[in-house]
Amino acid sequence: MTENGNDTKNRTATFLGENFLLESDFAAELYHEYAKNLPIIDYHNHLPPEQIANDHRFENITQIWLQGDHYKWRAMRANGVDEHFITGKASDWEKFEKWAETVPATLRNPLFHWTHLELQRYFGIDVLLKKENAREVFDECNRLLGTPTFSVRNLLRKMNVEVVCTTDDPTDDLRFHQQIRQDGFEIKTLPAFRPDKAILIESEGFTSYVEKLGAVSDTPISTFQKLLVALQKRLDFFHENGCRLSDHGLEQAYAEEFTEAEVAAIFQKRMNGQPATRQEALQFMSALLVHLGHMYHEKGWVQQFHLGALRNQNSRLLRQLGPDTGFDSIGDFSQARALGRLLDRLDSSNQLAKTILYNLNPRDNEVFATMAGNFNDGTVPGKMQYGSAWWFLDQLDGMEKQINTLSNMGLPSRFIGMLTDSRSFLSFPRHEYFRRLLCNIFGRDVERGQLPADSDLLGKVVQDVCYRNAKGYFGF
Amino acid sequence: MTENGNDTKNRTATFLGENFLLESDFAAELYHEYAKNLPIIDYHNHLPPEQIANDHRFENITQIWLQGDHYKWRAMRANGVDEHFITGKASDWEKFEKWAETVPATLRNPLFHWTHLELQRYFGIDVLLKKENAREVFDECNRLLGTPTFSVRNLLRKMNVEVVCTTDDPTDDLRFHQQIRQDGFEIKTLPAFRPDKAILIESEGFTSYVEKLGAVSDTPISTFQKLLVALQKRLDFFHENGCRLSDHGLEQAYAEEFTEAEVAAIFQKRMNGQPATRQEALQFMSALLVHLGHMYHEKGWVQQFHLGALRNQNSRLLRQLGPDTGFDSIGDFSQARALGRLLDRLDSSNQLAKTILYNLNPRDNEVFATMAGNFNDGTVPGKMQYGSAWWFLDQLDGMEKQINTLSNMGLPSRFIGMLTDSRSFLSFPRHEYFRRLLCNIFGRDVERGQLPADSDLLGKVVQDVCYRNAKGYFGF
Amino acid sequence: MTENGNDTKNRTATFLGENFLLESDFAAELYHEYAKNLPIIDYHNHLPPEQIANDHRFENITQIWLQGDHYKWRAMRANGVDEHFITGKASDWEKFEKWAETVPATLRNPLFHWTHLELQRYFGIDVLLKKENAREVFDECNRLLGTPTFSVRNLLRKMNVEVVCTTDDPTDDLRFHQQIRQDGFEIKTLPAFRPDKAILIESEGFTSYVEKLGAVSDTPISTFQKLLVALQKRLDFFHENGCRLSDHGLEQAYAEEFTEAEVAAIFQKRMNGQPATRQEALQFMSALLVHLGHMYHEKGWVQQFHLGALRNQNSRLLRQLGPDTGFDSIGDFSQARALGRLLDRLDSSNQLAKTILYNLNPRDNEVFATMAGNFNDGTVPGKMQYGSAWWFLDQLDGMEKQINTLSNMGLPSRFIGMLTDSRSFLSFPRHEYFRRLLCNIFGRDVERGQLPADSDLLGKVVQDVCYRNAKGYFGF
Repeated sequence: MTENGNDTKNRTATFLGENFLLESDFAAELYHEYAKNLPIIDYHNHLPPEQIANDHRFENITQIWLQGDHYKWRAMRANGVDEHFITGKASDWEKFEKWAETVPATLRNPLFHWTHLELQRYFGIDVLLKKENAREVFDECNRLLGTPTFSVRNLLRKMNVEVVCTTDDPTDDLRFHQQIRQDGFEIKTLPAFRPDKAILIESEGFTSYVEKLGAVSDTPISTFQKLLVALQKRLDFFHENGCRLSDHGLEQAYAEEFTEAEVAAIFQKRMNGQPATRQEALQFMSALLVHLGHMYHEKGWVQQFHLGALRNQNSRLLRQLGPDTGFDSIGDFSQARALGRLLDRLDSSNQLAKTILYNLNPRDNEVFATMAGNFNDGTVPGKMQYGSAWWFLDQLDGMEKQINTLSNMGLPSRFIGMLTDSRSFLSFPRHEYFRRLLCNIFGRDVERGQLPADSDLLGKVVQDVCYRNAKGYFGF
Repeated sequence: MTENGNDTKNRTATFLGENFLLESDFAAELYHEYAKNLPIIDYHNHLPPEQIANDHRFENITQIWLQGDHYKWRAMRANGVDEHFITGKASDWEKFEKWAETVPATLRNPLFHWTHLELQRYFGIDVLLKKENAREVFDECNRLLGTPTFSVRNLLRKMNVEVVCTTDDPTDDLRFHQQIRQDGFEIKTLPAFRPDKAILIESEGFTSYVEKLGAVSDTPISTFQKLLVALQKRLDFFHENGCRLSDHGLEQAYAEEFTEAEVAAIFQKRMNGQPATRQEALQFMSALLVHLGHMYHEKGWVQQFHLGALRNQNSRLLRQLGPDTGFDSIGDFSQARALGRLLDRLDSSNQLAKTILYNLNPRDNEVFATMAGNFNDGTVPGKMQYGSAWWFLDQLDGMEKQINTLSNMGLPSRFIGMLTDSRSFLSFPRHEYFRRLLCNIFGRDVERGQLPADSDLLGKVVQDVCYRNAKGYFGF
Repeated sequence: MTENGNDTKNRTATFLGENFLLESDFAAELYHEYAKNLPIIDYHNHLPPEQIANDHRFENITQIWLQGDHYKWRAMRANGVDEHFITGKASDWEKFEKWAETVPATLRNPLFHWTHLELQRYFGIDVLLKKENAREVFDECNRLLGTPTFSVRNLLRKMNVEVVCTTDDPTDDLRFHQQIRQDGFEIKTLPAFRPDKAILIESEGFTSYVEKLGAVSDTPISTFQKLLVALQKRLDFFHENGCRLSDHGLEQAYAEEFTEAEVAAIFQKRMNGQPATRQEALQFMSALLVHLGHMYHEKGWVQQFHLGALRNQNSRLLRQLGPDTGFDSIGDFSQARALGRLLDRLDSSNQLAKTILYNLNPRDNEVFATMAGNFNDGTVPGKMQYGSAWWFLDQLDGMEKQINTLSNMGLPSRFIGMLTDSRSFLSFPRHEYFRRLLCNIFGRDVERGQLPADSDLLGKVVQDVCYRNAKGYFGF
């Protein structure tokens, strides 16, 4: 920061201040006049519905903030913190202290911004967290968490959330979603259908999962046809409970050639306890994606594909800690050909649902954006969405790249915008972060003379992307 | 735009104004003093020679601007416009109106800049096109198109074009090129040789294409040797008609191992109506690229490779509308190994022609730039060209990345610069766009202290890239 | 450069000036107060130990600057210079003159900055080199090279170098390193262990290399087990001589399935003069990487992997000039899966050494950065390093991308920073270059309000990255 009062940049963007990330007057105007006060539609996250149903209150900041947050865990490990203080038996205070020690080392990592935004926005704490102030911050957060305003429903209200879509297994009984609705909770809390376990035929637990699915749906699953029947029943049940989205987490889209007879035989073989070969697995998964795609289309749902993660790379720590503990990375799979084939199969019979494609490897941004464009057919504005930057890419640089790629290859004005994809009730400032960076992008274009300085025009687009497009797209 | 008179940026770059894209005084000086007035050598495009021969005049703006422009079509589909108004039976006015409605939604897409640059530069219209002014713009454009100054030859003259190279099939009789030359049209209009149909042995129309080629060249093609003879004849004919470039549009370079006997057998099999296996096709294509490469080298031509497109992804709309209608995307092929092998094969016998490599997937920019560098041998300055950003990448970001990659990996001062690659007579402001962004890059470097503020030095490089390098490279 | 005294940028960054690359006051403060005066730990380069042992003095600037520098050779070839003046029989003056002619054409290529930084920092020459001043520069450089202050030890002292790690073949007798130590040369000059020739079983010289290795280690190598014994002996010997790093230059990590029996048979077959199939080669290389990895871990070494180069693409000039003469490029290999598997194999038995992963294709930056993160286990801060930008990427843009990717995916504060990777004694200003761009990145973040304007906090991180992290990591 210089003292130079003439420099627009310094009048505006200041670290975590009112104009954080807003590097021009135009950007600041867009954010404060158009974006800031819009409600939030968080159409994809991993919040536990049980905690919303019970209006859970957390015992301390470690439990709401560090527990289950593998982003923070990775940072602590990279910083040389012993596992004892990360996922081990150390006390909540000890874990928090180790995290506080790590925070200054996260400079330039998205955690540095997230951490301080969350402390500010939820707890009104505006120091930079470090070892020296850890105790003070710990105590103050815990004091506040002890008050009713920090129940999870109040945390959502505080952030002006309008809709929340969780991520749920087809076998889920959705009783917490039902309870939430019966309670009359004013924030729409809807399930989303994520049938990965029914698809990943190579995983060890596949057969027992299929049995569970059969039990839940009153459909003993003896054949591939029965599997489809069971899935359709669950899908109907989810739909009745307000579900309007599905989600798939896959390395790649699968689009092998298959016949129904082949797939039936593969399923039979696997259910008999034999492993499927790689080629058989690809055929099975390819087939199921088509069948499910038809069901989604029939219901008018939106289907989501999260592609490109390479998971569970560290087998030693996987054995010790289980999945989703911070040992996943970005894969370098081939994506274009199979993704095109899958979408084309669904489209060829006019059964391609509205679709969101999320890409984890930024090298493939242009492939995803142009592939989405191939299946827009004029029936729905922005039918094919190239989704917001995801996981490792959910940071300033990744989100800017996604928006820029979308701009170069498609229509950013039809973009349905941000989602948290988070397990944490403290992640909602990411919508603020997104809105700021979005406004800053438009402001920068105006400053550079690449867009007209027309706040009505640009403000409308900003509002569409931050709120209205999603509302219309999902029909919430 | 702020009112801050001290900010260099705001004195310069303004949306579509005189200093559009020129964000520093230095950039503005480079553009206005060195680049602006240079003639245009458009060494690769898809203009229809017949329209130049006949000095065609277009009935209305829809016909010159929307017909055949699949960039605009994709945007309209993404915006929810029904196909009826895109490629269907709607009137030219209705189509134009739907396009005008879509234009504000193309904010940040290159179409937004192109659209308004073209309206300004050709028609003197400087409003932002939208539904509300669509009729007025439509009428004014059509009035102007009705005047002789809007004949296609006058459009080319207006843009200060010196050379135009079209893209032509080997079977073309080139009579329109001949007519243009006989007319004494002062803008050199030359054919380029694009033998894709003779190479793509997997395509359905291959055998009938070979028969046509045989007929045109008075060489019944019964063997692979005869195919080569026929191609050589056409190549000679093209050369006599001023052709100095070939072009190949391929997913990847092909460089399989093959023997002449194998290739002869594969060709025979295919001509007998049997499909070639994938491996056979790769061998055949690999062989033909080598033979053609030798012919190009012998003639002193420049060979172009456009690599990386994944075409025709939407089979439903392909059936309805045919190819090149907006359903292509960026592929994620492996490029390095085969590209290196093909170039090496040609170089190993000292028969590698001057070569331009165009890359469609920006993730491969560095591979292309460094691969080109492997085959510079000091015989021709800039012999191996890593070509300008192409198709989806033909926008500010894509072109800047190409120039930056070339700068990091090679010599931008030897770059032969921009080409439209367009089917439209209204696309020539893309040269202006390129020149502006090129000058802006140099100006930015000077402002950041990364280049010396020496306008003579930098101005000369700018002129080389915008005009002189291409002139020398092609020998026009 | 404008005259606008209010613009911070212009007060600071000027071409090659005191504040070169430092575009804000904050960046300039970080550089001058924190980074500039730190010693240099050049933990990976290709300096010839013999020249350090003999405190070599170069006859002229061509010999110290152009001989062996294939970066410059590529540029000259691209500029149309005949090989006679590059690697041929032209005189040293003629070669220098041709290089001087080429320099203005390298505008925007890293060579343009390197060339002038090196002329300034070592020779005090601050003109822009060109044909017109070539003779004057040649003579002045040669005059200086004739003085004792330009001996190679004095060149290293001049740059404030503290440690130098060369790159050495396991068969090397390390006598020059021993001589340097015995001389009491105050700059630590250590060997590093690069066993590529023992790994690349597909190369022609493999069997004779194995024989040489057997001779040097007094271990006739009749079996794979004996190969391991010989390698262990050399590793012990290197360790005794101060070696603390290994290095591997590979296209990809190799991690095929193998049994010891298979590998033993493959080795036997190859030593009997038969070529290994591709699959056998992959198995052999996979096995050897695991065995070597265990040895490195046991010694507490750091293992380095330089991945992604596609070498020797131009067979005609390879035959003429040999390897490492400027005909290599960036490959587009698959990296993630095998890299993950190799690291996991080593980690699974808790035998994963500290590791640095260097990536040559920037499209894979995110894969490398996240893969490194999977194997941090809290035992060593920054145990897994995503290494600095390498070879073609060793320039402003490539280094910024590496730092930004590391920031987005990991902890830049734990980064061990820059290395020259160079064969030249004149390359040490690249550390200065790195430090400037690093400080500029932090300064830019502060200016944009993305980091707090806290020089103590940021200055400490800058110092860690420029010096202290490497010192601690390697234990020098």
